[in-house]
Amino acid sequence: MKAYFLIFCLPFILQAQEILPSWNEGPIKQSIIEFIQKTTDPSSVDFVPVEDRIAVFDQDGTLWAEHPLYSQLVFVFDRIPQMAKDKPELKGKEPFKTVLSGNKEAMMRLTGKDLMEIAALALTGMTTEQFAIDVQKWLQTARDARWDRPYIELTYLPMQELMAHFRKNGFKTYIVTGGGQDFVREYAWDVYQIPPEQVVGTAPEVKFSYNQEGMPVLMKLPKILLNDNYGGKPEGIHLMIGKRPIAAFGNSTGDQQMLEYVTGGSGLRLAMLVLHDDAIREYAYGPADGLPDTKVGTFTQDLYDQALKSNWGIISMKKDWKQIFSF
Amino acid sequence: MKAYFLIFCLPFILQAQEILPSWNEGPIKQSIIEFIQKTTDPSSVDFVPVEDRIAVFDQDGTLWAEHPLYSQLVFVFDRIPQMAKDKPELKGKEPFKTVLSGNKEAMMRLTGKDLMEIAALALTGMTTEQFAIDVQKWLQTARDARWDRPYIELTYLPMQELMAHFRKNGFKTYIVTGGGQDFVREYAWDVYQIPPEQVVGTAPEVKFSYNQEGMPVLMKLPKILLNDNYGGKPEGIHLMIGKRPIAAFGNSTGDQQMLEYVTGGSGLRLAMLVLHDDAIREYAYGPADGLPDTKVGTFTQDLYDQALKSNWGIISMKKDWKQIFSF
Repeated sequence: MKAYFLIFCLPFILQAQEILPSWNEGPIKQSIIEFIQKTTDPSSVDFVPVEDRIAVFDQDGTLWAEHPLYSQLVFVFDRIPQMAKDKPELKGKEPFKTVLSGNKEAMMRLTGKDLMEIAALALTGMTTEQFAIDVQKWLQTARDARWDRPYIELTYLPMQELMAHFRKNGFKTYIVTGGGQDFVREYAWDVYQIPPEQVVGTAPEVKFSYNQEGMPVLMKLPKILLNDNYGGKPEGIHLMIGKRPIAAFGNSTGDQQMLEYVTGGSGLRLAMLVLHDDAIREYAYGPADGLPDTKVGTFTQDLYDQALKSNWGIISMKKDWKQIFSF
Repeated sequence: MKAYFLIFCLPFILQAQEILPSWNEGPIKQSIIEFIQKTTDPSSVDFVPVEDRIAVFDQDGTLWAEHPLYSQLVFVFDRIPQMAKDKPELKGKEPFKTVLSGNKEAMMRLTGKDLMEIAALALTGMTTEQFAIDVQKWLQTARDARWDRPYIELTYLPMQELMAHFRKNGFKTYIVTGGGQDFVREYAWDVYQIPPEQVVGTAPEVKFSYNQEGMPVLMKLPKILLNDNYGGKPEGIHLMIGKRPIAAFGNSTGDQQMLEYVTGGSGLRLAMLVLHDDAIREYAYGPADGLPDTKVGTFTQDLYDQALKSNWGIISMKKDWKQIFSF
């Protein structure tokens, strides 16, 4: 009897154990597994054909750490001293003066308008190919201060497992980020096994032209084409995917409309928000249990209430994740 | 000896015969087959990893017939009488008056600006979902006059075979069209086995909002976000694919910059233009052999000269295609 049990049941037990190993057992893990089972089982009323299996993921704060500062903003700040060498006039001009001072507290107080101006200088005015080279160079040298590791290592292991589990079940996984599309595409393949065409993000206009050698190039212009935040996320999804995804994961108010759009379609849908409630293993901010507010990855009480009302899952990093990083 | 030959060689002979059966033997067919062989053979110096195998195709005039009029323009014209029922003021107002007159010759004389105004009315101002329903309805009833067939049957069999051959060899095939992205996406899967996310086209802005029931919807606004023609094609490719494709097919001046961009990358590249030189089996227009000019799918002498100079292939419908349509 025992031998039979082992021979016939062990593979199933092992398989069950292998799904999402960094997630603790509980209703969140259970509902993810059930959603994927129901949408991929041809005999289920919730079955979804493979071409409609699309899952979208916010990046900053959902797939990797966003505190103390979005890594793209660190990249932007890091570029300004270099740019000031070619453009010395920046040294006497705000908001660049503040960035060049290196005073981190003053930099944290910069307004949204200031940051847009700095970002426009750092992220546009070059060809797409030059930009790609610059990002690659930065990725290889820049390190997060708290963990003293390259930023690309600060991805959440449970979310990596989740995306892999979706893909194994025929889902296409997309990143839908408020961050720069060209920036995220530079590492999305290495970090998440997501190709550039599956990264939707904030994008400036690019202009086709010819360089001095007469070769065609695309220049990045300081003008936003797609602001992939809030309502811009479903707008970007329509532009680049052209179908309503059936699963969405986010962590902040910028993801609200994406989750509404995804769950607004007919059939079984899955929507979840990552709650940063683990100050020891990562960071703690957000609405629950008196966590502090933040300007980086804002998760308001309103969004929390909406999530509960709409039956969106709240992923507690503290309770639902056995391990956060792979290191 | 003979039996051995058959047993061992017949499968190879059959396989060779099966590649692009609607293409006549010749340098064009040969260079397509060679390009795919070289880029997919791991031992070749021209080998391209599967994630970089991207081939882009213009639609109108490249994958299906564009004469006497782009089918999307027929759709637009067909919608105006319906819209005039709700908006009777259109009846007295140009350019709508001309469209409502049904006078085809007068309609052919409408200016680009007129057509933009008509298209804006017919293609925007509704939700993306309502638009999809309207397009589906039209596709099921509208018929091309010359062949008395639904428009979606007017695709070129040799190009269908070509796209299938690319895909069989690990390529992702994209449509990059000056036509409306939302319009083409409605039939691209059925007609070309190309999913919506692999259709790049001219796109209006969409705006996230809520309908009267409080459900999230996307409204199509009368404002162009991406004009996917000329330089807009490489711009759209960068936005939506994020990589430089390695093969491109077009048929008109609107495709020139796309072919320049694709062939401007390093490594082996393939670029070809379809020449409409078969008045009997399809239509004849363009630069070669005194073919007439056209406003629909313009192929200038300049483009022809550039193609010869740049070593882009010219696909003669008359000489290179054994069969044009599947019917």
